[in-house]
Amino acid sequence: MSQLSALPGKDTVTGQRYTFAPRMAKTPKSFIREILKVTERPEIISFAGGLPSPALIDVEGIRIASNSVLEQDGQCALQYSTTEGYLPLRQFIADRYKKRLGLSVSPDEILITNGSQQCLDLIGKVLIGTGDHIAIERPGYLGAIQAFSLYEPEFHPVPLMNDGPDTASLDETCHSCPVRLFYGVPNSQNPSGITYSEKRRKELAAILRNQGVLFVEDDAYGELNFSGNSLPSMRTFLPHQTIITGSFSKILAPGMRMGWVAAPPAIMEQLVVAKQASDLHSNYLSQRIAYEYLLHNDIDSHIRKIRAAYQHQCDVMIRMLREEFPETVSWTHPLGGMFIWVTLPEGCSSMEVFEQALKENVAVLPGMPFYVDGGGTHTMRLNFSNSTDDTIITGMGRLAGVIRRMYIP
Amino acid sequence: MSQLSALPGKDTVTGQRYTFAPRMAKTPKSFIREILKVTERPEIISFAGGLPSPALIDVEGIRIASNSVLEQDGQCALQYSTTEGYLPLRQFIADRYKKRLGLSVSPDEILITNGSQQCLDLIGKVLIGTGDHIAIERPGYLGAIQAFSLYEPEFHPVPLMNDGPDTASLDETCHSCPVRLFYGVPNSQNPSGITYSEKRRKELAAILRNQGVLFVEDDAYGELNFSGNSLPSMRTFLPHQTIITGSFSKILAPGMRMGWVAAPPAIMEQLVVAKQASDLHSNYLSQRIAYEYLLHNDIDSHIRKIRAAYQHQCDVMIRMLREEFPETVSWTHPLGGMFIWVTLPEGCSSMEVFEQALKENVAVLPGMPFYVDGGGTHTMRLNFSNSTDDTIITGMGRLAGVIRRMYIP
Repeated sequence: MSQLSALPGKDTVTGQRYTFAPRMAKTPKSFIREILKVTERPEIISFAGGLPSPALIDVEGIRIASNSVLEQDGQCALQYSTTEGYLPLRQFIADRYKKRLGLSVSPDEILITNGSQQCLDLIGKVLIGTGDHIAIERPGYLGAIQAFSLYEPEFHPVPLMNDGPDTASLDETCHSCPVRLFYGVPNSQNPSGITYSEKRRKELAAILRNQGVLFVEDDAYGELNFSGNSLPSMRTFLPHQTIITGSFSKILAPGMRMGWVAAPPAIMEQLVVAKQASDLHSNYLSQRIAYEYLLHNDIDSHIRKIRAAYQHQCDVMIRMLREEFPETVSWTHPLGGMFIWVTLPEGCSSMEVFEQALKENVAVLPGMPFYVDGGGTHTMRLNFSNSTDDTIITGMGRLAGVIRRMYIP
Repeated sequence: MSQLSALPGKDTVTGQRYTFAPRMAKTPKSFIREILKVTERPEIISFAGGLPSPALIDVEGIRIASNSVLEQDGQCALQYSTTEGYLPLRQFIADRYKKRLGLSVSPDEILITNGSQQCLDLIGKVLIGTGDHIAIERPGYLGAIQAFSLYEPEFHPVPLMNDGPDTASLDETCHSCPVRLFYGVPNSQNPSGITYSEKRRKELAAILRNQGVLFVEDDAYGELNFSGNSLPSMRTFLPHQTIITGSFSKILAPGMRMGWVAAPPAIMEQLVVAKQASDLHSNYLSQRIAYEYLLHNDIDSHIRKIRAAYQHQCDVMIRMLREEFPETVSWTHPLGGMFIWVTLPEGCSSMEVFEQALKENVAVLPGMPFYVDGGGTHTMRLNFSNSTDDTIITGMGRLAGVIRRMYIP
């Protein structure tokens, strides 16, 4: 299965020939989305996706907020608005950074985006020239690999250890070439579930500071740490070199595509130009609904519910891994988020596991697409946020059986 | 006033140095948005913007649709969804192409975007390599100039006549270099208000067919033709070489950022990859609300109301131009849309008119940013959709006075 989409020159039906920009040949199609298409059948137990639990979306609260915005200020909420986004919502995000992480972020340093995926596109537009060197965790988030690929950088993967990136390897990379930025997910990383330790964060900051490298801190899962105790943002250690991306998808609702990027003023100025050129501004109605919801509901209490539920689902999945899987299989122990990373013995193929498990109506996500330099063929990502206890127990039981049959003679 | 944003190397407050991608130096900031900031004061009568009339947004209809979606299928409407967009909405758009323009477009050839501005970004991503030659109307839509600039093409402006682009000039350009695409707005063009005649459309199609050049048909204003009689889409004449961009901003509500692109299958395949990398998918809640609204309301009757109102506002503005302005000033006679293009005598400066008029609390949009090759210093765009009779009469009266005082000794 190739990650690179071909550069089709011809429509197979009409025979019309087209020429596409070279960047398209470098952009991997989302393997995840391709797999999700296969796994959409209702009889499939899917650990392949990355959906938050639908039961933890406060539909009624959002309905009331939506109704209220449209009743009280509909003409304005449905009109064009500013590129930067709704100021009270940006102020809310800034206040939350202060309260949760002790960070001083001005609302002027925040831009509302169409989900946090769009932050990656805007960062690519603004910071990545063709052939620029960028560093990324190994394994790294597929969405970032896709978004950045369009700007044709040279990727330098930095191995992820159990407590964060291999800083020695990063340091070596930074000495060997001018690295523009390092993209990472310090809290409950996608795909691995790993959280950087505070020690690792400080080491990392020291290297990036010395080398003048920006850190792109994707914090999609920071609110979902099971303990509720947040580790410091990299912006604490690297105030002028950190760009944070955030998301309401995991704490409010993904369908509204509400994310944001927080960046130092000089970078923000460019991000706003790029945003304007990309889509003028984010959905203003949804910005107003999100703010109205946050104003009238206790988001902290809602987030505590999500944390408790995901921690429980994660525990059930890990219990199944411990009790049912062969001893040669290992896995990460997430402190939060939505994913566990499973490593099969060397030589085993997670693509084969995927195919065999699908026959038993269980879907997993093979790990290869998360490696920009190949490898990872014996790894896979399991999502626990979108399954109940029962489906986790049933699905993991079947998966254990598949792996035992395949690799234990 | 320079169109090019500088490439700031340094944060003026922190002293931190940053390096931006070269493409950012080539992207004009939106002059319109900079001007709109100046003109946001409530005492200003603004003909500078491009807002639809807020009185013609059916707020109550949208509130009912939103409530209904969230009541009946909220968990799903708030979850992640497919990159392509909500199938029933795409089917509605396809059906409307058939009914309104006689076009056979499959829903598979339609992708829902974050406003029609995003179509331009996606088209740039997929089709424009650095240095590629693209043709654009002169004057051309600023949003397209901005979006495409990020992909660093070489622009070739094609003069716009009263009945469409100067086809001889386009033909010459196509002979002098390999033109990748021609971007145009055949119906009630932004900024000029010009509509291509059917004869011009056929001539244009013949040239593009011969030269193998794609046509990007921005049809943001197609539904707003005052007479209700649509001219054929360029896809009628160039079925495999036309990409159409569409928008609900002018007929439903801009704040929901709902647009779409319709393209032949081989191009659509690449657009979907680019969309996925850019922001996964468009706001799903808003897609559901838009569809729910369209299902339960008579959109044709609503559009007829918008057409009648805009035609009336356009007539009032043209009457003021005819009765109050010096004879040396000329203007276009739009068949639809939201804009009139005004040409002052050679040597007059619309930037000076802008500055003088602003002192009398009237805002106009100088025409220069719509010219990729300079020029247009004596032109300006006037918007009539977002003003009442009274504000048009008062504002145009003041503007006439300013111009008379400046240019008639």
